[in-house]
Amino acid sequence: MDKKRVLIVGGVAGGATCAARLRRLDEGAEIIVLERGPYVSFANCGLPYYVGNVINDEAKLLLASPALFRERFNIEVRTLNEVSGIDREARTIAVRDLVTGREYSEHYDALVLSPGAAPIRPSWPGIDLPGIFTLRSIPDSREIRDWIESRSPRRAVVVGGGFIGLEMAENLAHRGIAVTIVELANQLMPPLDPEMAEYARQQIESHGAGLRLGDGVAAFEQSGNGTLIVHTQGGAPFDADLIVLAIGVRPETTLARNAGLEIGQRGGIRVDSQLRTSDPRIWAIGDAVEIKNLLTGRWELVPLAGPANRQGRVAADAICGRASHFEGVQATAVCGFFGLTVALTGATEKALRSAGIKDYQAVYLHPNQHVGYYPGAQAIHMKLLYRKSDGRVLGAQAVGESGVERRIDVIATAIKLKATVFDLEDMELCYAPQYGAAKDPVNLAGMIAANVLRGDAEIAPWSELGSSDAFVLDVREPQEVQAGSIPGSVNIPLGQLRMRLNELPPSGEIWVTCGVGQRAYYACRILAQHGFLARNLSGGYSTYRVLHPEIEQEAGALAENLVLIASAEK
Amino acid sequence: MDKKRVLIVGGVAGGATCAARLRRLDEGAEIIVLERGPYVSFANCGLPYYVGNVINDEAKLLLASPALFRERFNIEVRTLNEVSGIDREARTIAVRDLVTGREYSEHYDALVLSPGAAPIRPSWPGIDLPGIFTLRSIPDSREIRDWIESRSPRRAVVVGGGFIGLEMAENLAHRGIAVTIVELANQLMPPLDPEMAEYARQQIESHGAGLRLGDGVAAFEQSGNGTLIVHTQGGAPFDADLIVLAIGVRPETTLARNAGLEIGQRGGIRVDSQLRTSDPRIWAIGDAVEIKNLLTGRWELVPLAGPANRQGRVAADAICGRASHFEGVQATAVCGFFGLTVALTGATEKALRSAGIKDYQAVYLHPNQHVGYYPGAQAIHMKLLYRKSDGRVLGAQAVGESGVERRIDVIATAIKLKATVFDLEDMELCYAPQYGAAKDPVNLAGMIAANVLRGDAEIAPWSELGSSDAFVLDVREPQEVQAGSIPGSVNIPLGQLRMRLNELPPSGEIWVTCGVGQRAYYACRILAQHGFLARNLSGGYSTYRVLHPEIEQEAGALAENLVLIASAEK
Repeated sequence: MDKKRVLIVGGVAGGATCAARLRRLDEGAEIIVLERGPYVSFANCGLPYYVGNVINDEAKLLLASPALFRERFNIEVRTLNEVSGIDREARTIAVRDLVTGREYSEHYDALVLSPGAAPIRPSWPGIDLPGIFTLRSIPDSREIRDWIESRSPRRAVVVGGGFIGLEMAENLAHRGIAVTIVELANQLMPPLDPEMAEYARQQIESHGAGLRLGDGVAAFEQSGNGTLIVHTQGGAPFDADLIVLAIGVRPETTLARNAGLEIGQRGGIRVDSQLRTSDPRIWAIGDAVEIKNLLTGRWELVPLAGPANRQGRVAADAICGRASHFEGVQATAVCGFFGLTVALTGATEKALRSAGIKDYQAVYLHPNQHVGYYPGAQAIHMKLLYRKSDGRVLGAQAVGESGVERRIDVIATAIKLKATVFDLEDMELCYAPQYGAAKDPVNLAGMIAANVLRGDAEIAPWSELGSSDAFVLDVREPQEVQAGSIPGSVNIPLGQLRMRLNELPPSGEIWVTCGVGQRAYYACRILAQHGFLARNLSGGYSTYRVLHPEIEQEAGALAENLVLIASAEK
Repeated sequence: MDKKRVLIVGGVAGGATCAARLRRLDEGAEIIVLERGPYVSFANCGLPYYVGNVINDEAKLLLASPALFRERFNIEVRTLNEVSGIDREARTIAVRDLVTGREYSEHYDALVLSPGAAPIRPSWPGIDLPGIFTLRSIPDSREIRDWIESRSPRRAVVVGGGFIGLEMAENLAHRGIAVTIVELANQLMPPLDPEMAEYARQQIESHGAGLRLGDGVAAFEQSGNGTLIVHTQGGAPFDADLIVLAIGVRPETTLARNAGLEIGQRGGIRVDSQLRTSDPRIWAIGDAVEIKNLLTGRWELVPLAGPANRQGRVAADAICGRASHFEGVQATAVCGFFGLTVALTGATEKALRSAGIKDYQAVYLHPNQHVGYYPGAQAIHMKLLYRKSDGRVLGAQAVGESGVERRIDVIATAIKLKATVFDLEDMELCYAPQYGAAKDPVNLAGMIAANVLRGDAEIAPWSELGSSDAFVLDVREPQEVQAGSIPGSVNIPLGQLRMRLNELPPSGEIWVTCGVGQRAYYACRILAQHGFLARNLSGGYSTYRVLHPEIEQEAGALAENLVLIASAEK
């Protein structure tokens, strides 16, 4: 009997999925999972919530035990067994049993590398002081929990303002600890465009968390009483009782490198669309590989669980001779903290620029998650990116307190299916008063973009607002304008526009703004039909504010302004 | 100047949208909206919530006033002006001012009919007794509110268990009134397949509302003390202090019929894809027209706000010479009541059958809305319909307490873009522990269906369970089986299956079941590879229960069963 022997290195997410799929496809194969850590198939995405005690039962994080794998899938799982080398010629791996110290080798017909990625731990002075943690495994999170429970820290510092950093910050705050986030970049959530990340900054600050943006850690120190001191490059040093590093992860490629497998330009293992490495007997999946971005065509490191799972399936299919392919990632992601949801899919403007792609345009909108007349309506701030030449949807980012992930999921689906903004206009989505609007935010995004592409309401480039000599027309009501406006703009309320056209410059561009862009669109249509060259400043003053976070507004004026916008736009 | 004159009959939803869009396209046109009621552009979807005092400010329901239309859009709105006839030859309409009684006529270049639909009010004995209401307008809802506030009714009856009926029931319950629903059909929510509607029944009953399914009203009566008595065809009469009729709506076609415009087979105004009636100068939109269903190709009456709005846009485009088209509806809808969300898109099994379509298959699944290890995980019960021949997604229904509308929106988008179940498998959707799972419910639905189509795990027809002589194998744990199982099924827990294959019949079909279908799938893969002819009873015992609502389970056993399923499936 031709019994295939498949070894899988790493038993979390992709590895576990691959093993289970292999068994479903081949009842006769011998499948062995080798996992360096003490657990197989644990919920690594749940770790911050275990630290935060939102999840309080560690057992819940264990998705499957070696016993379950054996019983249900006839798969052998060896935890605490580390793979230290690959002999590609002999098709064997060298393994070390971390409990007994025994070293042994195992032969394979197919080898799957699913080693994941390791948290980055820079060589800053003091990095190894007690009370400084990274978070990758259940033991890691147990250590932080123990530290919290035994030391009752009052002040925590999270280094890194990315997705995991913000989840950590929220969870530490949930434990009653005052949190400060230190982020080297000038924005939180680096995958986002900066103006969209600005909403995250506002939320963090309004919830009383400390924030040092554009500032990096220089060193850690321990004072006489045991308190940690954080020295940054830019500011005064400050104290902490607990520090969590969430700077990012680095793909685990040591095994692959030592075996001479091809490593890609981003430092991940290079694989083809069947997740095969440069050795046809070796596959690699998950956070350790680099993957083509579907929108930009660039290689990327995408440490996300969804793609890792699909890669596990595709690799298993390939090993069993099936022609499945993993076409690439669009990097759909979501993160929740302090009541805010931030989600994105496809390319950001940043990513398009960095890939040298110029055939794109962006529109902003700020619709409510459901009709304004139903209690609890709240804005979703959205940015939609699409190809200027044909309207293909390229990406979307959305931020808000409710309904955010739903709209990004719809746009993610549209992107995957190569839809255009014209398709988004016509999507027929769920509507009842508490769930949405007859024109869903996704429809609105499509309409705004389609209006631009059809030439019905072109948009003005926000980036040129300061340098252009365009006439800036603000069509809001005077009370709204009083609470803040674009410098140099001239106010003519929409309702008076038709009668006051003579106040406008007969030639040259008129850039129109309002609260969120809707009245400006109406104004643009009026102006265009009277021969003016009008463009909409997409998303109105709401967008202006996040593009210019340096403008601090008086809180009262701001709130009033939002109320006025809401009532004027209905 | 060639000033086009457009008259619009009916100012809610479609009519208001059409008027505003017309103005944006043609600054010079003369646009007049004639509305029989006292308000233009009010939130009719919000009326049940106004009755329920969830929305307590009537002004919030008024989306736009005649003054706003005039000021912002230069559109004349005449409320309390009823159009009583159309002279197609002369291109005039006859209008009656309901305040002054004055009759006059108006000439048009283009006429748009947006009269909506009227609640059905059968000629039952006693139908006109005080305390019996329908709900279509703000004055209607004010009357019900007044009745509630002045009479403090304790017992209400809602006649009709469709979407509006259930919204009414929830809102009356919200006011502290004991509600009984009377529905002639044997299921609630007639657009759904009956087993999916069963979840609605369970929710209604578990929230203490009364329910008379399969029973129709025969007559209403008033007792001496003023209490209303409801006589039904099937049961004993019962008392009510308030009755709301929510039996459905009938398209308002009197004007169109009298003018000799073509009426379709469902009784709605017949229009082409540009919403043009049989008279090229007259358009019709909204609840009064019948529309082709995109999935079944059949004409349907679809009283939904989203399609009405899009129709308004398309008609305006057509009037202004633009080539927009309304391709049809997929009837995406959502309804929330008693904490449950029910949503659907595309075709149901019922609709496919009734259209004579046989090339389809259905799968059931019961995934959680987010990972089980994050607190608050709850099942979404889903049914996915797809074409057997090529995997095209045809429709989906989902029921649950959270995350329902999001999954239906994704599938609605997939349907609109002509996606297959193979596309659903690979969708890259938002995942973080509190938002979903690495394999989202939509991915799972796609995988289950794709497994069937690839021949990896065929499904058994639930409808033939009673008549087939297939061997029914239950692979759950014995404790689960004790709490309820399919009659005649044989229990071999999944973990013992490989060792007990000799207990299975060597020939003939084996239909496999478990809690929700996942373990049965694993079992099918094992069996298939050992030469057995295995099929999955899709959705497992969870599906069996809603297909057999007559089986009453002891509440305790049921709860225990669900806990066991949850732990066994993780």
